[in-house]
Amino acid sequence: MSIPPDLQEHIEETKESILVPDEEILATEFLGLSDDAIREIIETLHSEDAEKLDLILDDLTTSDKAELIEKTTYENRQALMLGFSRHFDADVISILQEEVRNKTLETMQAEQVAKIISDLESDDALDIVESLDPEFQQEIMRKLSAKIRIALQEGLSFPEDSAGRLMQREFVAIPQFWTVGKTIDYLRAAKDTLPEDFYDLIVIDPSHHVVGEIPLNKLVRAQRTVKIDDLTLDEVHLIPATMDQEEVATLFRNENLASAPVVDEDNRLIGIITYDDVIFVIDEEAEEDLLKLAGVTEDDLYSNIGKTVSSRAGWLFINLLTAILAAAVIAIFDATIEKIVALAILMPIVAGMGGNAGTQAMTVAVRAIATNEISGANAWRVIGKETAVGFLNGVLFAVLIGITAGVWFQDAGLGAVIAAAMIINLIVAGFFGASIPVVLNKINIDPAIASSVFLTTMTDVIGFFAFLGLASVFLL
Amino acid sequence: MSIPPDLQEHIEETKESILVPDEEILATEFLGLSDDAIREIIETLHSEDAEKLDLILDDLTTSDKAELIEKTTYENRQALMLGFSRHFDADVISILQEEVRNKTLETMQAEQVAKIISDLESDDALDIVESLDPEFQQEIMRKLSAKIRIALQEGLSFPEDSAGRLMQREFVAIPQFWTVGKTIDYLRAAKDTLPEDFYDLIVIDPSHHVVGEIPLNKLVRAQRTVKIDDLTLDEVHLIPATMDQEEVATLFRNENLASAPVVDEDNRLIGIITYDDVIFVIDEEAEEDLLKLAGVTEDDLYSNIGKTVSSRAGWLFINLLTAILAAAVIAIFDATIEKIVALAILMPIVAGMGGNAGTQAMTVAVRAIATNEISGANAWRVIGKETAVGFLNGVLFAVLIGITAGVWFQDAGLGAVIAAAMIINLIVAGFFGASIPVVLNKINIDPAIASSVFLTTMTDVIGFFAFLGLASVFLL
Repeated sequence: MSIPPDLQEHIEETKESILVPDEEILATEFLGLSDDAIREIIETLHSEDAEKLDLILDDLTTSDKAELIEKTTYENRQALMLGFSRHFDADVISILQEEVRNKTLETMQAEQVAKIISDLESDDALDIVESLDPEFQQEIMRKLSAKIRIALQEGLSFPEDSAGRLMQREFVAIPQFWTVGKTIDYLRAAKDTLPEDFYDLIVIDPSHHVVGEIPLNKLVRAQRTVKIDDLTLDEVHLIPATMDQEEVATLFRNENLASAPVVDEDNRLIGIITYDDVIFVIDEEAEEDLLKLAGVTEDDLYSNIGKTVSSRAGWLFINLLTAILAAAVIAIFDATIEKIVALAILMPIVAGMGGNAGTQAMTVAVRAIATNEISGANAWRVIGKETAVGFLNGVLFAVLIGITAGVWFQDAGLGAVIAAAMIINLIVAGFFGASIPVVLNKINIDPAIASSVFLTTMTDVIGFFAFLGLASVFLL
Repeated sequence: MSIPPDLQEHIEETKESILVPDEEILATEFLGLSDDAIREIIETLHSEDAEKLDLILDDLTTSDKAELIEKTTYENRQALMLGFSRHFDADVISILQEEVRNKTLETMQAEQVAKIISDLESDDALDIVESLDPEFQQEIMRKLSAKIRIALQEGLSFPEDSAGRLMQREFVAIPQFWTVGKTIDYLRAAKDTLPEDFYDLIVIDPSHHVVGEIPLNKLVRAQRTVKIDDLTLDEVHLIPATMDQEEVATLFRNENLASAPVVDEDNRLIGIITYDDVIFVIDEEAEEDLLKLAGVTEDDLYSNIGKTVSSRAGWLFINLLTAILAAAVIAIFDATIEKIVALAILMPIVAGMGGNAGTQAMTVAVRAIATNEISGANAWRVIGKETAVGFLNGVLFAVLIGITAGVWFQDAGLGAVIAAAMIINLIVAGFFGASIPVVLNKINIDPAIASSVFLTTMTDVIGFFAFLGLASVFLL
C-alpha cells in the first residue's frame, strides 16, 4: 500500500469523520438492469411519454443500453433505437451481440451506420464491418472517408481471427533517442490526438521497428533526464499481424501484458492489441468450445428460428447416422432379445453409463488441449490415467448394476453379464474419451467439434455389442 | 496512430533501411515449449550433466518453467525443482495449476514455502495460501513475518471467490488536493516502494474514501499545474470486498476497466483488482461451466487416480439412477417388445436424438444465463423459440427416420410410430432444454451442474414412453 506520508497524518487526525456508506446501493449497482427496470422502460416506450422515456434512457450506462436492446423484442428495438437516437452512443452498437447488432444496423440508413463506424476506434469499427453482409458492407464503405475506408480494407485483408483483425491502429510510439522529459512534453502537447486509453509507449527506431515497450508506470516514476533507451524493457513481445487470436490470448496470459505491439511481415509497428481485446477473445473461445462440444456451431441465442433450426440440424443428422449404426448392432442380436426381453430393458443403461463416463474424460481432455496443458509430452500419461479411472469406476458400477439387475430379474447370470459389459464399456469410455481429442488435435481437426460424435459411437456400439454379445454366449 | 512529427520525417528519409525479419523466429516464439524441448530437458535431467541443465533452465521464461513442471512426471518434478532452486522464481510456483502447486509445495520445507510467499504480491500469496491443507497452512503462517501473516489472515477472512480474495493490497493512492506536478514528484521519489505494475491512481479523501480514479495516461498528458480534482474521473467503480468474483468480471468487461478500487464495509479503500485478476476469473469460470456440464466437479487433469475416480463417481451414480428409471419405463412395455423386437432396435434412436437436441438447447441456455443474457425479461421468448426449433427439427428427422425404419423393417406402421415419437421427443427436448436451466437458476441451483441430469431423464423417459406406448396402441 502506498499512501503519501502527509496524507497518512491527515487520515489519523480525521478518523472520526468516517462516512456511513449506503450498502444497499453498493450491492445492486453492478448487477446490470433488473427485470423490473426493463419492464418499466418497455412500458414507458409503449405509453409514448417521450419526456419520461428520455429521462430514463439518459440514466442508462452504455452496457445497460446494450442489454436492454438485446433482451427486448425486435419491434421494441426499433422504437428504442429511435429513443436513443438523440444522444446516440456508437459504443452501444459496438458492444451488442453480433446477431443483434447486424439486425439493428440493417434497419438503419447507410449514412447513419457510416457515422457510427467513423466514431469508433479502429478495432471496434473493423469488428462491426467484418460481420456485415457483403453488399451492405460495400455500401457502407462507400460512405466512409478515404482514410477510414483504407484502414478498414487493410484490416479486412488480414485472416479472420488474426492479430491484424484484433489490433487498433491508435497507439503512441516514441523514438528511442528521446528522454523521459521530452516524452512527457510531447504527450502534453499532443494530448488531444492521443488514443483515448493507452497503457504502454512503444519505442521504435527510425525505420519503424519496435525496439521496446515502456509501461506508463515506469515512465511516471523516472526523472526527466533519464533516457528512453535506458528505460526500455528489452523483453518486448512482438505480435505478427497473422498470429491467431488464441495464441495472442495465451501470450498475454503467460506474460501478463497490458498491451503489445503488432508488426507487419517486415517487422514494423502497425498497431497494438490491448488486454480488453484479449478478454473478448478469451470469452469468445471459451463460449465456442462449450457450444461446439454440445453440437452448436455458433451462438444462436439471438438467431431467428429458421437459422437456428438449420444450423442445429447438421449435428443432429450426423448423430442420427451413428444412432442407426448402434441400432444395426442391436439388430444382430434380435433373436437373443426375443428370448430374453430383459436385455432390451437393461441395454440402454450400459450404453448410457459409457457415454457419460466418456464425456467426463473427453471434456477434461478437450479443455486441456485448448489451454495447451496436453501435448505429446504427457498425452500417453493422461490417456493411461483415464483408462485406469474408467476401469476402477467400471468395477464400482459393475457391482451396483450387477446386483440390481440380478435381483430385479431374479437371474444371477444376467447380473454377471451386465457387470462384465459395464467394466468393458467404462474402460472403452476412459480410453477413447481421452485419446479421441488427442488424435483429432494431432491431425488438425478441432477436438471440441468432432470428439463427442466419435466417442458416442464407440460407447454405444461397444456397449450394446459387449452386453448383447456376452448375453448370447452365456445366457442362451 | 500517433507518431511525433520529427520522427515521421526521419522515417521518410530512412525508408530504404528496412530490416528483413526472421519470420521463422516470429512464428514459433510464442508457442511455449515444444515436445522436443521438453524431451531434451528431461533427458539432460537424467544425464546428470548439471552444467548443461543449468544452461537450458536459465533460458526458460517463467511460463516455460511452469509448463515443464506441469507436463512432467512426479519424480521428474522433484529433480527439476532442485535444478531450479539456485535461481528460483516465486512467480513460477504462483502460476502453476493448483493441484500441481500443492503437491510441489508439500515436498518443500516450510521455511522455503514461507520465503516464496513473502516474495509474491499479496493477491498471488493469498491464492497459494488459501488452497493449502489447513495444517500445512498453519505451519507456513507461523514462519511468515507478522505483517504478511496479518495481511493474509485478513484476506482469508473474506468469502471464497470474493473481491477481497482477489485484490492486491499494493496500490497507489493520492489525495485529491494535490496537483499533477506534485503527484509526479511523489511517484519519482517513492519509485522503489510503488507496486511493480499499476495502471490507475486512486484518489482518496482524508478518511480513505475513494473519490475517483485517474488512469496514468490521463496523468501524463496533463500539465503540472492541473489539480488532481479537475482530472478525477467521477465515474469510479467501487468494488465491495464481498462482491462475487463473477460480478467483478462482469463489471470489468462492461466498463472496460484496467483496475478498480476495492472498499471495505465502511467504503474505505483496502485494495485494488487489476485486469489480469479478471482474466484469471474469466478463465476459471468458463472452465468450471464446461466441466460441470459434463459432470466433472473440478479440473482433475493433475489429480491422482483415486481422487479422480471418486470425484467422477458421484455424477455417474446419479446418472445410473436415471438410467434405471428409464429402464423401468421400458419394462412396462416388455410384452410389446417381445412381440415386435424391432422396437428394441429402434428405441435408442428416439431417446438419443432427444438427448442430443436437448443438449444443444440446454447449452445455449446455460451459457446465456452465465453471461446474464437470459433473465425474466426474455426467458419465455427463449423457451418458446427452442420449443419451436425442436418441433421443426422434429418434423425433419421424423421424415428421415420414419422412411428409414419403414423400409428397414418393411412396416409402414412402424415408420409412422417412430416418426410421431421423434416429433414428440424433440419438442420435449427443446422445451425442457431451455426451461430446466432457467428454472434451476430461478431457484438458485447452478444450472451448469444440474441441468443435464434432469434433461436426460426427460428425453429418455419420454422418448421410450412415447415410442413404445404408441407402438403398443397402434401396432399390436
